[in-house]
Amino acid sequence: MTASKVSLLCVLPEAWRDYYLDGFRKRLPDVQLVLPQDAIPPESITYAFVLAPPPGYLARFPRLKAIMPVGAGVEHILADPDLPDVPVVRMVQPDMAQRMSEYIVQHVLNHMRRYREIREAQARQAWNLFVSPTAQDTTVGILGLGTLGQHAATYLRPLGFKVRGWSRTPKSVQGVECFVGDDSLPEFLSGCDVLVSLLPLTPETAQLIDAQALKCLPRGASLINASRGGIIKDADLIASLDNGEVSEATLDAFDIEPLPEDYPYWTHPRVTVTPHCASAATVEAVADRLREVITQVERGGMPSPVVDRTTGY
Amino acid sequence: MTASKVSLLCVLPEAWRDYYLDGFRKRLPDVQLVLPQDAIPPESITYAFVLAPPPGYLARFPRLKAIMPVGAGVEHILADPDLPDVPVVRMVQPDMAQRMSEYIVQHVLNHMRRYREIREAQARQAWNLFVSPTAQDTTVGILGLGTLGQHAATYLRPLGFKVRGWSRTPKSVQGVECFVGDDSLPEFLSGCDVLVSLLPLTPETAQLIDAQALKCLPRGASLINASRGGIIKDADLIASLDNGEVSEATLDAFDIEPLPEDYPYWTHPRVTVTPHCASAATVEAVADRLREVITQVERGGMPSPVVDRTTGY
Repeated sequence: MTASKVSLLCVLPEAWRDYYLDGFRKRLPDVQLVLPQDAIPPESITYAFVLAPPPGYLARFPRLKAIMPVGAGVEHILADPDLPDVPVVRMVQPDMAQRMSEYIVQHVLNHMRRYREIREAQARQAWNLFVSPTAQDTTVGILGLGTLGQHAATYLRPLGFKVRGWSRTPKSVQGVECFVGDDSLPEFLSGCDVLVSLLPLTPETAQLIDAQALKCLPRGASLINASRGGIIKDADLIASLDNGEVSEATLDAFDIEPLPEDYPYWTHPRVTVTPHCASAATVEAVADRLREVITQVERGGMPSPVVDRTTGY
Repeated sequence: MTASKVSLLCVLPEAWRDYYLDGFRKRLPDVQLVLPQDAIPPESITYAFVLAPPPGYLARFPRLKAIMPVGAGVEHILADPDLPDVPVVRMVQPDMAQRMSEYIVQHVLNHMRRYREIREAQARQAWNLFVSPTAQDTTVGILGLGTLGQHAATYLRPLGFKVRGWSRTPKSVQGVECFVGDDSLPEFLSGCDVLVSLLPLTPETAQLIDAQALKCLPRGASLINASRGGIIKDADLIASLDNGEVSEATLDAFDIEPLPEDYPYWTHPRVTVTPHCASAATVEAVADRLREVITQVERGGMPSPVVDRTTGY
């Protein structure tokens, strides 16, 4: 990679740390791995791989050359008023959209085919009858028609699902009924059997899924949030689940991650919590991407894609 | 339908009865619905819609014109030595293959993406890391390449899965690596990350999935049985699950249905029991098919498809 050993600060939840560090040690033997608790001079740190560093934390490292957030969402990084003025580089993985679409198909089918109720019946040893609609009878609505949203729509279509999409700017996707802008949101929602959020979190999308939006869904519709926790007003979703307006929710992203102990989602009978794994890449793929970015920067180049701090993505 | 009211005997598990009878009353108002416990002269019964009638039971009805089994499998009906000599008519539904393929994609994704472990982590409020292979890294092996098997293969392919199939007679399916005959079974099994059974139950396929076959799978492979319980040697599967050779099993069909109380599958931590719902049709679709068959027979025609009692399907 480079003549001198570069150092990579890893700010990760404890439960994830070993997986990444073990993989990095094997795949990036020439990189010095540093943890926040290590007694290492801050000026020796040149790269940071971070999930959710506390505000102000990254400013402690005066020689940082690039910040590489673990996931696709970066709004929590950009919200740091003391964020060092170095490139924030997206960990784009070639198979991220594939993984995300697999997650969406998996959970759309689990919702449509009442898998939660089937498991509850098994726990009671009850041989109940379960008859479900088919994909042809089911409309999946995708909030956000960027790269991920378009991939998901294209992945769902050959299975027979009816797919509609909503975005803030006009988009056109073959076989997908496209809605645009705030005015069309209620009409879009009213036709969704399963609503899937793939929206980035911006001031315009924050808490977009609130009581008013949830009431626009057909009664008994379900929700999959695979983007950012802040899209959803949690108290409103829980109320809708409790009164049956929403039949169930599968959530991969949360306002605070790891999801705090005793947060009501953990134990809600109609909520599936998946720990931000919808599009989690293998450590090998992440290590290869880190190597690519570090190599570019060490050679004096500009890595890509770098987050635009004015648009926020 | 017909001038005189026809009578339909319904032999169904108690938990399913109301769903079918309520639907039939609405959709087949001119058909007299009869239950086994009703005090009705046996000679007044002309049609029977049955899941698993006891051997000899149908012989009590001397004027039976046709027997219509609920599901696709009929070997338990044909095994009745006193089965009346009237057509056994398959309840073919146009969307049966679609439903079956949806079930297979759902559970292949659940296995591949470790959904069972993710739910266990949720129950412990553990924010663990889950990274899975993608569909492109996953081989699904389908036992049985009839109508259902070919549909499933064609449904899985656009999602990116590698698909291989095994059948007793040579088949060719685009994009699917096809294996044929007993000799090729070990080689077929050795490449399956998820093994899916769609085999009919015949003397040749009974208990095909035994300890020897399970040992041919890669360690940690998983199993989905969406055809007949008799394909699997249950004690061998449970042993393989217990020693980790097989990571998990999702089972929709069982030797005895409803699955008896306290059967080990109900509570095994690595087994998902689905109550024969993989391809369950709506009562409206079943009623329409019953009307079609009854109309054909009442007009003196031969319904189709009728089970060939020599081949067993």
